[in-house]
Amino acid sequence: MYKTLKEEAWEANMETLRLNLGIHTWCNVSAFDPAKGVFAIKPSGVSYEKLSADTMVVVDMEGKVVEGNLNPSSDTETHRVLYREFADIRGITHTHTPYATAWAQARKPVPVYGTTHADNVANTIPITLIMNAEEVKNNYEIETGNQIVNTFRKQKKDHNSITMVLVSGHGPFAWGKTAMQSVAQAAILEEICKIALFTITINPDALPLPDYLIRKHWERKNGPNASYGQ
Amino acid sequence: MYKTLKEEAWEANMETLRLNLGIHTWCNVSAFDPAKGVFAIKPSGVSYEKLSADTMVVVDMEGKVVEGNLNPSSDTETHRVLYREFADIRGITHTHTPYATAWAQARKPVPVYGTTHADNVANTIPITLIMNAEEVKNNYEIETGNQIVNTFRKQKKDHNSITMVLVSGHGPFAWGKTAMQSVAQAAILEEICKIALFTITINPDALPLPDYLIRKHWERKNGPNASYGQ
Amino acid sequence: MYKTLKEEAWEANMETLRLNLGIHTWCNVSAFDPAKGVFAIKPSGVSYEKLSADTMVVVDMEGKVVEGNLNPSSDTETHRVLYREFADIRGITHTHTPYATAWAQARKPVPVYGTTHADNVANTIPITLIMNAEEVKNNYEIETGNQIVNTFRKQKKDHNSITMVLVSGHGPFAWGKTAMQSVAQAAILEEICKIALFTITINPDALPLPDYLIRKHWERKNGPNASYGQ
Amino acid sequence: MYKTLKEEAWEANMETLRLNLGIHTWCNVSAFDPAKGVFAIKPSGVSYEKLSADTMVVVDMEGKVVEGNLNPSSDTETHRVLYREFADIRGITHTHTPYATAWAQARKPVPVYGTTHADNVANTIPITLIMNAEEVKNNYEIETGNQIVNTFRKQKKDHNSITMVLVSGHGPFAWGKTAMQSVAQAAILEEICKIALFTITINPDALPLPDYLIRKHWERKNGPNASYGQ
Repeated sequence: MYKTLKEEAWEANMETLRLNLGIHTWCNVSAFDPAKGVFAIKPSGVSYEKLSADTMVVVDMEGKVVEGNLNPSSDTETHRVLYREFADIRGITHTHTPYATAWAQARKPVPVYGTTHADNVANTIPITLIMNAEEVKNNYEIETGNQIVNTFRKQKKDHNSITMVLVSGHGPFAWGKTAMQSVAQAAILEEICKIALFTITINPDALPLPDYLIRKHWERKNGPNASYGQ
Repeated sequence: MYKTLKEEAWEANMETLRLNLGIHTWCNVSAFDPAKGVFAIKPSGVSYEKLSADTMVVVDMEGKVVEGNLNPSSDTETHRVLYREFADIRGITHTHTPYATAWAQARKPVPVYGTTHADNVANTIPITLIMNAEEVKNNYEIETGNQIVNTFRKQKKDHNSITMVLVSGHGPFAWGKTAMQSVAQAAILEEICKIALFTITINPDALPLPDYLIRKHWERKNGPNASYGQ
Repeated sequence: MYKTLKEEAWEANMETLRLNLGIHTWCNVSAFDPAKGVFAIKPSGVSYEKLSADTMVVVDMEGKVVEGNLNPSSDTETHRVLYREFADIRGITHTHTPYATAWAQARKPVPVYGTTHADNVANTIPITLIMNAEEVKNNYEIETGNQIVNTFRKQKKDHNSITMVLVSGHGPFAWGKTAMQSVAQAAILEEICKIALFTITINPDALPLPDYLIRKHWERKNGPNASYGQ
Repeated sequence: MYKTLKEEAWEANMETLRLNLGIHTWCNVSAFDPAKGVFAIKPSGVSYEKLSADTMVVVDMEGKVVEGNLNPSSDTETHRVLYREFADIRGITHTHTPYATAWAQARKPVPVYGTTHADNVANTIPITLIMNAEEVKNNYEIETGNQIVNTFRKQKKDHNSITMVLVSGHGPFAWGKTAMQSVAQAAILEEICKIALFTITINPDALPLPDYLIRKHWERKNGPNASYGQ
């Protein structure tokens, strides 16, 4: 019934393997169909060689499994909150890639040190606050989603131009207009975080790009007069 | 006679090659059969292309070779002590992976900086004391095993929930319910150590996760109500 | 009409993939034919599996597309300035490789710490100034080219012996006598930058090589009495 | 005439490619036949796909090419000095691997931080002095060899137990009982240097192993009562 959506989710999950975004089963990707009000997500803890489109789990917006015999990813509820609150996204990728996870563990947002970052995100990569004991006691995975959303709202950030976030002490989430695009964004985030770590190793006092350069690169690739791409 | 056990040991040793856990012949993995009171281990210094299930060496709990024509791994006695003292484990992996070995050489335990660590181990990765001259003069490989066991006992740590350790100045050992699982744990330890090094490079004052977050992630994946996996 | 030139450009672009010089479509390489006054360059944002010699875009020295249906790389105007001002080069490669980009983001020139560097460039790798707001408002890609050229002129550097540069806050450009050679230079720059970062990590007070050693290595490989190669 | 020797040299050079010990043509390996008083070495600057046993260059102990149509490696004279002075070695590998080269550029010997190092070398990895202007003016490649030899003699080091060295500001040389073994040693040196850099990043005050542990590991693998290997 959700054949296309499950294929999209499966292909995007396999892409994380090709792009080397994690060991074991540490990535999860989902694909959202807003018309049907469901998303397809990787089953929890299943190795890549056993994955197929058929093993994907379809979950509705109340969090109920509507197709599939396996348990969905343990981060399913976080994906659900993001699809509900960032209503125009269609795919989400969560990884534990080493450089992005290290910035999350260091509890530091990633400044825009260069055009590689500005080509893709015109702002500091935001980071959530570390969750308090009360929030963890409630539904933890929902709270993770809430923290991401609240971070964007409090900082008045736009999830369409900032398509990635660090969850403090945990790791990165990225999203996009398709599941496959969210994987590409996760790979970009890892690269930005890697180069940023190298940058501050060379120069601990490295400065962010001036705003006019950030805007220029962002608009070149993403603005209404973007010249990048076809 | 020990065909299945030797196959299990051989396959797990080959997995260290696939997961890129060491150059040359720097890894050794063993598989334990408690019913027969023996374990199968990689022969010492034999290249992977010459390894087969038949070349595995079977050793009993007195340290006697009971099957196989080759010398067992030089770390065999350490494996033997661990199987004797941590009686419910079934596989052990020793590597010299660069990040885990660096923490061992730095003689520092690895704090729980994030959920990647807490998903797998709910504690600081323990490290032994550096061995003194007297201990080295005795049977060194047995002493290495004793040091690991004593570290767990003195710190009242549970080897079933902390399935890995750093031997000070030496490198990592990891174990599991199967030989293959011990290899997976060794890969996880390397990833934890890599991300921890990056974390303190970004923020030398990085804090460990609060306890409630450590417990939450650990229990999600390992507790009696674990939601992770199938 | 420009078949050979487009094939040269395409093959050099594919070489960046083989040498692992960037994720997604973050590299661009061009090949110049001074007799015809045109260069062929990668189309903007097209994935490598869709690239072929036919998809390359041919641009003349006024910046007009003279063959090809796709948009050329967003950095085309920078390539054009370099071909105009460094008239004897025949290929240019731009990447966002992590170590070279980190030095660019740290806004630091790369000292000649060793013979690996001196074998290839007998000088500090130069870096442009960070562009000011006025320059960005004008044609940004042309200004990037101008900044590179001005950096070489002000510092009285020779673009034939220093075949690479860092654009401040952005990343590296490299060039050569062929498009393929410019890719090789980009790979060399990344290796030099990687080793330099490791060098200052080990010894923050590392000294550059003495001049007589720099000259010796440079001349061994590049001088009139070069002994290197066939 | 020197067919076997050239095959040995060629296979060992190809092994540097398989072990990923350098980009482009930055490695050179030679194989020595003391009975015939010649060694076979890689030709200078020839890409790996064009190498074959036939392209190896055979050089005698006066430095004269006795077989082969190509120029030998630019480091040939350094190899010659080492074969003359360290008369029992049979193979030499020179690389520019990033971690070993970084220690050479940082002009720091590599302390024995752990057993990975002690298993292979029971001493600090020695480093030459930076060459002075006078020495460079003479035959530079011979002086490089002389500096290595003098470093060992002054420090009373044994080239049979310390099979590797860093040339200050330049990079590593390693040797062995065969050409292939010298490549293995070069890979070991890179791994030791990588782990040492990580070690001091984690703990800038990291201590070397105590002597009794260094000796234990060295003798386990290399002493008269070595238990390692078959």
